[in-house]
Amino acid sequence: MRRFILFQFSSVWVLVFLITAPAFGQEADLIRQAGNFFKPLPEKLSAPENNPATPEKVLLGQMLFFEPRLSKSGAISCNSCHNLITGGVDNLPTSPGHMGQLGGRNSPTVLNAGVQFAQFWDGRAASLEDQAKGPILNPVEMAMPDESSVLARLRSIPEYVALFKKAFPGEKEPLTYDNVAKAIAAFERTLLTPSRFDDFLKGNAKALTDAEKKGLQLVIQKGCIACHNGVGAGGGQYQKFGIAEPYASSDDPGRFNVTKKETDRFIFKVPLWRNVTRTAPYFHDGAVWDLREAVRTMGKLQLKINLTEEEIDLIVAFLHSLEGTVPEAALKLPVLPTSASATPKPVLK
Amino acid sequence: MRRFILFQFSSVWVLVFLITAPAFGQEADLIRQAGNFFKPLPEKLSAPENNPATPEKVLLGQMLFFEPRLSKSGAISCNSCHNLITGGVDNLPTSPGHMGQLGGRNSPTVLNAGVQFAQFWDGRAASLEDQAKGPILNPVEMAMPDESSVLARLRSIPEYVALFKKAFPGEKEPLTYDNVAKAIAAFERTLLTPSRFDDFLKGNAKALTDAEKKGLQLVIQKGCIACHNGVGAGGGQYQKFGIAEPYASSDDPGRFNVTKKETDRFIFKVPLWRNVTRTAPYFHDGAVWDLREAVRTMGKLQLKINLTEEEIDLIVAFLHSLEGTVPEAALKLPVLPTSASATPKPVLK
Repeated sequence: MRRFILFQFSSVWVLVFLITAPAFGQEADLIRQAGNFFKPLPEKLSAPENNPATPEKVLLGQMLFFEPRLSKSGAISCNSCHNLITGGVDNLPTSPGHMGQLGGRNSPTVLNAGVQFAQFWDGRAASLEDQAKGPILNPVEMAMPDESSVLARLRSIPEYVALFKKAFPGEKEPLTYDNVAKAIAAFERTLLTPSRFDDFLKGNAKALTDAEKKGLQLVIQKGCIACHNGVGAGGGQYQKFGIAEPYASSDDPGRFNVTKKETDRFIFKVPLWRNVTRTAPYFHDGAVWDLREAVRTMGKLQLKINLTEEEIDLIVAFLHSLEGTVPEAALKLPVLPTSASATPKPVLK
Repeated sequence: MRRFILFQFSSVWVLVFLITAPAFGQEADLIRQAGNFFKPLPEKLSAPENNPATPEKVLLGQMLFFEPRLSKSGAISCNSCHNLITGGVDNLPTSPGHMGQLGGRNSPTVLNAGVQFAQFWDGRAASLEDQAKGPILNPVEMAMPDESSVLARLRSIPEYVALFKKAFPGEKEPLTYDNVAKAIAAFERTLLTPSRFDDFLKGNAKALTDAEKKGLQLVIQKGCIACHNGVGAGGGQYQKFGIAEPYASSDDPGRFNVTKKETDRFIFKVPLWRNVTRTAPYFHDGAVWDLREAVRTMGKLQLKINLTEEEIDLIVAFLHSLEGTVPEAALKLPVLPTSASATPKPVLK
């Protein structure tokens, strides 16, 4: 990048030097060091072989993401708990689902969810496709009684029949529960939010303020990057919550519920740092509202360190640099087709 | 319009004659006749003198329209019940509000709501501004305990403080409950949905199919236009629900609750026909899902006529011509500012 600027402005050497200077020395070191642990977001996420992305599929997935008829009550869509305009979450400890029932864990952000190695706090879904199938049928979430009820709703609406045909061309029966999940996942893979930190990782030392750079140095020095690393700055591994001392406010056994292995007790997927400043409250139980408090807790419980107030401020400053931009196309609300008279009715009880 | 086409294509007289023919004779009569009862949507709704529309105010209003923090639980926004992508309603008999409590009446559409002479089914709000203040504080809807709780949430968020300042320049304290309502109303006034029927009223006879024209003739001949008329094809007057015979499925006294006058018992605001094909279920209690059934009921209860199946089909065909296009700008989701640590928390109980 520096070479490109040099070439472009070859007649104004001094200016070039000033622009590129910040990336020399200490700051270039920090960019390089950060690059050992973090990776910038790609332009696009690669799709699994059995679910290639097409514009038709992404649009259908977007419609389904905002589709309240995927819930028993007809009142809850994916976006209800994973709201694209509030950091991809609902900013609640746990989410009100069918008729106000509360879920068991904090709704994780859908933004950049596709960069993760597994989905849900306990990683019980391997892919976005697997994940999308869960909440629709969960009795305290969208509460549809079964897959065929979901299909009955959608198949009764001619526009959806046509849209599934376009999104899954050549398939004998395109409107299946698997394809509902595939379309939603294809849309979700577009929800990448590039941030100033990506610019920094790509070589623009000016993209971060001094405080943010100091915060970045701290998360490297203190060891946060042992878990929060990679493209997502998290979302790449499981970790015990409460390594140095136990997390007192919840006895949720985490991944143990999935594997039934005693070694998986209190094991959770490391959450993303991307947009973390927007996704309060924190932890799997959503018990902590203040990000400074969450950072302090992580230092103590995971790293056995007492971070100073100043260190916490700097780390939080750095986390702000991971606030990203939601793609414009994703924010363009799709008008949904109208129910037909044969469409099975919502059930508000 | 016809003259313009004549001028434009003066060298191909025959073609011009074919194009313009539909607006002559019977069809021109129908357009003229329809024009006696209906008016096309204006390009813009005029704002009340004390709430002039500005781009800043409309944008703020759009943010507030999608703002779940205007509800006690932090989970319900205006858009939850008046969903812009499903006809401006939630397509439920009555809406689930705070922690799943059900409201008392069917949520009316927000689309073109500003053309109405009053708001709510019983007209208890005179303006969009007045209306917007209601649901936020209604204990079974958004359930905020009082105005100052709403202001405490918003004032704790610096971005909102700045946005209110821009939207209400020169005001000593721009962030007031009145101004919350004014901004929402300014946004709602942009929610006009021009339809093919507007094109027809403006002189384009081709804008309606033959069946739709027959349906239009029927609604004029049968007398539906006594109540469903004007810009909204409804929304311009109160009427007793059950003139010829009582509406059996609800004992809601309607406007009586507002005025306590016996003559206002079972009086409701005539709802809009615009987008009515998208806003099932019907009537103030949302008891009737099928539009054909609703049309039949209206004929019987209001006009003392038994419409034939064919007549009902034609009327419903006509109503489809009132399906409008939601403005693109309104469908562009605004990213909301993040809560500050001082922002009062949601209450999920």
